[in-house]
Amino acid sequence: MTLQIADKVFHSRLLTGTGKFSSAEIMAKTIKASGSELVTVALKRTDLQQKNDNILSHLKPLGVQLLPNTSGARTAKEAIFAAQLGREALGTQWVKLEIHPDPKYLMPDPIETLLAAEQLCALGFVVLPYCSADPVLCKRLEQVGCAAVMPLGAAIGSNQGLTTRSMLEIIIEQAMVPVIVDAGIGAPSHATLAMEMGADAVLVNTALAVSPNPISMGKAFKQAVEAGFTAYQAGLGAKSIHSQASSPLTGFLSGVST
Amino acid sequence: MTLQIADKVFHSRLLTGTGKFSSAEIMAKTIKASGSELVTVALKRTDLQQKNDNILSHLKPLGVQLLPNTSGARTAKEAIFAAQLGREALGTQWVKLEIHPDPKYLMPDPIETLLAAEQLCALGFVVLPYCSADPVLCKRLEQVGCAAVMPLGAAIGSNQGLTTRSMLEIIIEQAMVPVIVDAGIGAPSHATLAMEMGADAVLVNTALAVSPNPISMGKAFKQAVEAGFTAYQAGLGAKSIHSQASSPLTGFLSGVST
Amino acid sequence: MTLQIADKVFHSRLLTGTGKFSSAEIMAKTIKASGSELVTVALKRTDLQQKNDNILSHLKPLGVQLLPNTSGARTAKEAIFAAQLGREALGTQWVKLEIHPDPKYLMPDPIETLLAAEQLCALGFVVLPYCSADPVLCKRLEQVGCAAVMPLGAAIGSNQGLTTRSMLEIIIEQAMVPVIVDAGIGAPSHATLAMEMGADAVLVNTALAVSPNPISMGKAFKQAVEAGFTAYQAGLGAKSIHSQASSPLTGFLSGVST
Amino acid sequence: MTLQIADKVFHSRLLTGTGKFSSAEIMAKTIKASGSELVTVALKRTDLQQKNDNILSHLKPLGVQLLPNTSGARTAKEAIFAAQLGREALGTQWVKLEIHPDPKYLMPDPIETLLAAEQLCALGFVVLPYCSADPVLCKRLEQVGCAAVMPLGAAIGSNQGLTTRSMLEIIIEQAMVPVIVDAGIGAPSHATLAMEMGADAVLVNTALAVSPNPISMGKAFKQAVEAGFTAYQAGLGAKSIHSQASSPLTGFLSGVST
Repeated sequence: MTLQIADKVFHSRLLTGTGKFSSAEIMAKTIKASGSELVTVALKRTDLQQKNDNILSHLKPLGVQLLPNTSGARTAKEAIFAAQLGREALGTQWVKLEIHPDPKYLMPDPIETLLAAEQLCALGFVVLPYCSADPVLCKRLEQVGCAAVMPLGAAIGSNQGLTTRSMLEIIIEQAMVPVIVDAGIGAPSHATLAMEMGADAVLVNTALAVSPNPISMGKAFKQAVEAGFTAYQAGLGAKSIHSQASSPLTGFLSGVST
Repeated sequence: MTLQIADKVFHSRLLTGTGKFSSAEIMAKTIKASGSELVTVALKRTDLQQKNDNILSHLKPLGVQLLPNTSGARTAKEAIFAAQLGREALGTQWVKLEIHPDPKYLMPDPIETLLAAEQLCALGFVVLPYCSADPVLCKRLEQVGCAAVMPLGAAIGSNQGLTTRSMLEIIIEQAMVPVIVDAGIGAPSHATLAMEMGADAVLVNTALAVSPNPISMGKAFKQAVEAGFTAYQAGLGAKSIHSQASSPLTGFLSGVST
Repeated sequence: MTLQIADKVFHSRLLTGTGKFSSAEIMAKTIKASGSELVTVALKRTDLQQKNDNILSHLKPLGVQLLPNTSGARTAKEAIFAAQLGREALGTQWVKLEIHPDPKYLMPDPIETLLAAEQLCALGFVVLPYCSADPVLCKRLEQVGCAAVMPLGAAIGSNQGLTTRSMLEIIIEQAMVPVIVDAGIGAPSHATLAMEMGADAVLVNTALAVSPNPISMGKAFKQAVEAGFTAYQAGLGAKSIHSQASSPLTGFLSGVST
Repeated sequence: MTLQIADKVFHSRLLTGTGKFSSAEIMAKTIKASGSELVTVALKRTDLQQKNDNILSHLKPLGVQLLPNTSGARTAKEAIFAAQLGREALGTQWVKLEIHPDPKYLMPDPIETLLAAEQLCALGFVVLPYCSADPVLCKRLEQVGCAAVMPLGAAIGSNQGLTTRSMLEIIIEQAMVPVIVDAGIGAPSHATLAMEMGADAVLVNTALAVSPNPISMGKAFKQAVEAGFTAYQAGLGAKSIHSQASSPLTGFLSGVST
């Protein structure tokens, strides 16, 4: 059940975000219920001058690995600068690389992302890039030293699920680093499906934060991820077009007089 | 979390079947791991002359509610006769009504099923009919006194998932008795989805029995059902086409000098 | 390309309805553009006292086969009575049998539909029943003498397409009479898909009537149905998971000096 | 109905390929039946020394615009070299840019493709790049001067249809140059759907070439593309969950004595 990324081992395969929650307290309780051990934080959201800000002070007792993200960056240069600020502010080499020039759908830029990834890896960062579900791009991100790849299932915050499924399947088949499905996962069934397909982990934020009951939803996602991973390991049956009877079909009356 | 059918209360929302397992021992361990408390048994599979047959003797220690099914029946008359045999043999009024004249896809017969359901209810049975995902038929089965309805997600044993989703949604919306999605559920994600949609329970057999690791798969389905039910109760967010940023998007560098 | 239903031969595999159009003139022009030769008419919509009403007077010059429907009937008895009125008023034995007790989703009632179908066939009607996508029900409707079966793709007027696809495939495989996919077809691509799957025809109404340009849409559906039928007859290739290069892949530079 | 790419106007919105056909004669007849006016040719397949080779000699009488492709290129450098050979051999500035380092799924390389596109545009080529369904990449390809973008629907030759639909919708919404859906289109219904979504054109090869009746299939795709484009222009109705009756529902017997 453990997941290794770079040199760290996690017991949970559910990554969470910290945005959109109604309060930092709810956020922390939700993350705790979810079992998540790797939590992404927007740099803007943390007070870079003062480490004891609201979000961080609520996250600290959970003992999770912080994963500062570069959300808001539109170029490699901006992202690298943001990553360096995050390293200084949060004391971690880990960074979730996000570069999205388009404010409407927040689609990641493949060119700038690869450029920034290469430079950040060279600078000693542990880089987890958010990227489009592009099999060749994922291979290239891996080749420049990324610790994992984070292809999107659908637009961020859209809750649409694994709309890029056919590409995710190829990415998973070919990857030599962990594949973490990010964005679009709006329901536990999406998370279960991703894990059944062989994804190494999923990241969920909006679906938790906007639920009327985030803490319960955190628990649901924890179970969903575990269910999917267990099923993947146990081995799923093939789909068939014809029926295969689970109960004996013919002659149930044979042997008894009618 | 409890599910009430007729006058019984269950703590699990996962029904299981007993067919296709490699051994009765594996079957029993799988059912135990799944947490299932309501277990369907084909009449042919149990020895009607002698209650201590292999399947039953393995099920007994689990303390589950047995649900004899009429699999193999092609007409209402055959099904009623089978149900009566089952009642006598297994000492329970509960029956899963299955009538499928077609040996290839095992599709249930709506006419004979309604006819048999009406008569079995009149005879005092607790009737859970397997049926097509037909909203009007489900209402009619409810009206003649069925304790639940069991519409199919796909052909039995096909592992195709909720191919009838659009009809299941209408059935769930309109039902006054528990809706148990039966047939076609081939992966935990299917079960999670059914529960998220508001189904009261799901029945799984083939996906457990044919897994290389049935016991692990039993555990996976247990978690999957709980995840989906928890999410349904907590309330899922709406899907949207546009992105909704979970992290702040613009000006992440504002407030710091670049 | 011709389609035979009962003893009539049609050159079009597109059935149309007459409801919801902004005017009878637009309706007639749309039907003409669609090439449809079999047109369903609600009994209420035609003036039963006076044959030259607005709809009928616009349809007459088109030379189409009228197909009165029993829409609004909630029971077999009501439907049979309506069919008899239709026969008298429109001078045709053909009837589209529709029985839907539920006003919200207009789902057909399998029990009453089969009952009415049997009686109407016995009375000499040419019966085309609208029904749920239930393979056993379709077989039974065929066995009592229906000239075709009209399983639904989705709820009437929902434009959702072939949501019942997995069941339609079984119905098409097993049917000995024409299968006409009715309800839910909201775009030409749905019609093309139905025909590619081997359906004999489709019925479209809402998608035409509510389009800003019904006449163009009529033409689009005509082409879509023909495209799907032609493809079905020509034979479609299988889907595959792996790529199969359409252009030569390796060594495009071989033979030339680089 | 006309489609403009760069300075050329086409009367067909169906692009075709020339690979995999059983003979050049069948290929030419299929393309003619399809109405396609823009036809892609692999450089390897044409004899670069001698223009009157088999494929070209069959294409010439059709009067189509040739679109040499760089299939087989694994880097920008190889693709540029191939494009230059193609220009010389076929006497056209037009090029379909394809760079796919992975021989199994033939997924295009976003980095090398953008690099090559930029240089080819600077060299005066009319560049139509095959690319992943990545909205930001498509914008960037447009910005470096590509005459169109050709995002994939699924892996080449897989016949899986528009598996990347959610991304294609964003690409179509944002593009200022024609969007031609390429790869994966395995049935006319896929082509119709792409056009209904607002794609400007589609490219089809495998589905034509491997059909038992390529010429009929060519005709089917011609109709399918026209149907989808006509429907897009006419305006499709929205999908709804509830039914909307096309025939009057209640009281069909009102006004007549029963």
